[in-house]
Amino acid sequence: MNPKVEIFSQGEEVVTGQVADTNAAWLSQQLVAMGFSVSRHTAVGDKISDLISLLKEIASRADCCICTGGLGPTTDDLTSEAVGKAFDLPLQFDEIALQQINGYFQQRNITMPEVNRKQAMLPQSSIRLDNEWGTAPGFCLQYQHCWFVFLPGVPYEMQHLFTEKVQANLQTRFALQAEKLVALRTFGIGESALQENINQLTLPEAVTIGYRAALDEVQVKLLFPHHFDENLTAEITQKIAAEIGDYVFAIAEPDKPAGDLVAVIGELMNTTAQTLAVLETASQGLIAAKCIGHDWLLESSYKNNVCAMTGSPPKDCQSFLFATAQEMGKSLRISSGASFALVQLYDNKHNFSNKNQPITLYTVLLTANGFCQHTKTVSGTSQRKQNQAALFALDLLRRFLQQKESLCPYYD
Amino acid sequence: MNPKVEIFSQGEEVVTGQVADTNAAWLSQQLVAMGFSVSRHTAVGDKISDLISLLKEIASRADCCICTGGLGPTTDDLTSEAVGKAFDLPLQFDEIALQQINGYFQQRNITMPEVNRKQAMLPQSSIRLDNEWGTAPGFCLQYQHCWFVFLPGVPYEMQHLFTEKVQANLQTRFALQAEKLVALRTFGIGESALQENINQLTLPEAVTIGYRAALDEVQVKLLFPHHFDENLTAEITQKIAAEIGDYVFAIAEPDKPAGDLVAVIGELMNTTAQTLAVLETASQGLIAAKCIGHDWLLESSYKNNVCAMTGSPPKDCQSFLFATAQEMGKSLRISSGASFALVQLYDNKHNFSNKNQPITLYTVLLTANGFCQHTKTVSGTSQRKQNQAALFALDLLRRFLQQKESLCPYYD
Repeated sequence: MNPKVEIFSQGEEVVTGQVADTNAAWLSQQLVAMGFSVSRHTAVGDKISDLISLLKEIASRADCCICTGGLGPTTDDLTSEAVGKAFDLPLQFDEIALQQINGYFQQRNITMPEVNRKQAMLPQSSIRLDNEWGTAPGFCLQYQHCWFVFLPGVPYEMQHLFTEKVQANLQTRFALQAEKLVALRTFGIGESALQENINQLTLPEAVTIGYRAALDEVQVKLLFPHHFDENLTAEITQKIAAEIGDYVFAIAEPDKPAGDLVAVIGELMNTTAQTLAVLETASQGLIAAKCIGHDWLLESSYKNNVCAMTGSPPKDCQSFLFATAQEMGKSLRISSGASFALVQLYDNKHNFSNKNQPITLYTVLLTANGFCQHTKTVSGTSQRKQNQAALFALDLLRRFLQQKESLCPYYD
Repeated sequence: MNPKVEIFSQGEEVVTGQVADTNAAWLSQQLVAMGFSVSRHTAVGDKISDLISLLKEIASRADCCICTGGLGPTTDDLTSEAVGKAFDLPLQFDEIALQQINGYFQQRNITMPEVNRKQAMLPQSSIRLDNEWGTAPGFCLQYQHCWFVFLPGVPYEMQHLFTEKVQANLQTRFALQAEKLVALRTFGIGESALQENINQLTLPEAVTIGYRAALDEVQVKLLFPHHFDENLTAEITQKIAAEIGDYVFAIAEPDKPAGDLVAVIGELMNTTAQTLAVLETASQGLIAAKCIGHDWLLESSYKNNVCAMTGSPPKDCQSFLFATAQEMGKSLRISSGASFALVQLYDNKHNFSNKNQPITLYTVLLTANGFCQHTKTVSGTSQRKQNQAALFALDLLRRFLQQKESLCPYYD
């Protein structure tokens, strides 16, 4: 059993939604990678009674708790006081803490405001965590079965303190056995279709499968126990990847992270020194925008009046729009001098802003030897259609670069 | 006393830190604005025992609870089951829910996967919340003293359901006395500079001022008590807006919501029936992408080789890049037939991907009578530079349209 850790965030700005609790997310990632099991996040504001009862609750549930926030100098910073009351540990003045806080201000040629003196008051028997990145020292202490670590809420200070002063200590204090996480990153297939494919496979019970749908991809997450056989890990991963098929654009492993769809394309474009020109319609600049930082994108353009056919498409809309896109792609490839031209058109322009009506995308990739193309239907708000359009266009390029050639039969 | 609401998020992706819990932040903002007091956020993973105990805890503490996540079709989606067990409400098959889920797939020409049938099982006596934006219906129910609302975890679906199906119901169910929130939406000025300006004003003690820095704007939030005098509210708002100056692009009031920068521009473009053509460099498609759904954008293009000057700029870089941009803008305005041409160039291309080095943007807006221009320095990652570049370009157009004429002295 992995040790159970909880994350506790203090701050009115968190509970009132002025900021998303990115500290909790960041800490959880580190802790999971170390081999902890994160069981709960809780955020409360600056009511001292809420803080006290939460600290007691956590002490009764978890093996470890990382708390952020509430260590500042102002009256709404109540963490130390709450710890003192919850665990019956009077606050004590810490001379070294005060020197460090003083030093922080001296370095900036400022006289320490009197309010900051409060930050040198730490609960009896706690261990001070020196903060070289701000004024609030952290501290840690054992209460009953639970090891508590208190860190400032400023993300930059919190991350430095955790990485440089807390992590190694946790590793000696707990017997941690990190699980191995493999993520199959897919695009173009839904969460439930993925699950139906994978459910047909028989997998060892020790392997856990999870799914995560994000805006730009769906991930299949495989969790292998710490001592799980490496060959078997690779075999299972490959078996699942094969079952999902060409939708998998990358496989991320602990020692081999994988980028997103554009990063995967970027690596293949750079390796083969190829370049791209794009004509966008439904995606309206978003294909180019997603390729920020990639020099192989030579040019991209969007024109309102070639967007799409208005009115109802003619009967053979498919062959008509594909033929048009192919012609445009040929010209663009020549005029731009790029290795590839990517052109996307769509039908039923009047449906674009109607979230209840779909549009159909006709995407063509022109290469040195011919072209590949596909048609996809997307629905939802304008923003969703735009994003899906950009991703489907990029995914056609990815499939070509990864030599899923069965998808590109249309060679001259 | 404001009614006490808690936010409960279900999902391994939240507790393991793969995503920050932006749902909790978004919901809290809405609820605070409605007059609730948000007392706690909790996130747990997909252990059914954790879910059950959390539901019982919340029922004993809060007047209302909004839960997100765990309504999907897969085996790790356990919210309905947990509700059934925690509150002793057997799950019942809902025929209308199944029809809607089926309809969602039919619209996309897909046969409903069998796993999705599970989403039509709802706790006995709960009220179904029809989800027109995805497959998972939400539901709500009273348990003891607490009103529970269960929503899907996909932010887009959750936000739509909350706004269109939940909010009005909460307003009739609870005696809410919302404070009046006025938000001054600004672009181009930092949080601390705003604060320094505003700190010089004397305001009634009952008015609370907050600041929120988002990616695309900084908001100054004024909270007026429920019964605060309306004329005085308007007077104070105007006084602060005047102090901030032209950075304010919109003022949002409870009965007069205001869109984002692009929405503000869109309204002005449509009222005056004007059109736009854009040449993008640092923004690489993002100006066009942000204008999705707006027909007044006639065209936009990005070309890698006109991006910027490489190497060190010459001494009079400013006049050089501005002159070039003006020439390009004149041609673009004529070739596109648009009312306005917006051209942006930047110097020091080799700094673009270096997050420790800034670039300087030269943006020119060509109009029927001449041009306006500005230069701005942006720093940070490629993504941040790209986004700021797009916003500064759009903001030049906004300032012109709002007739901040002092900014556009360069008429032929």
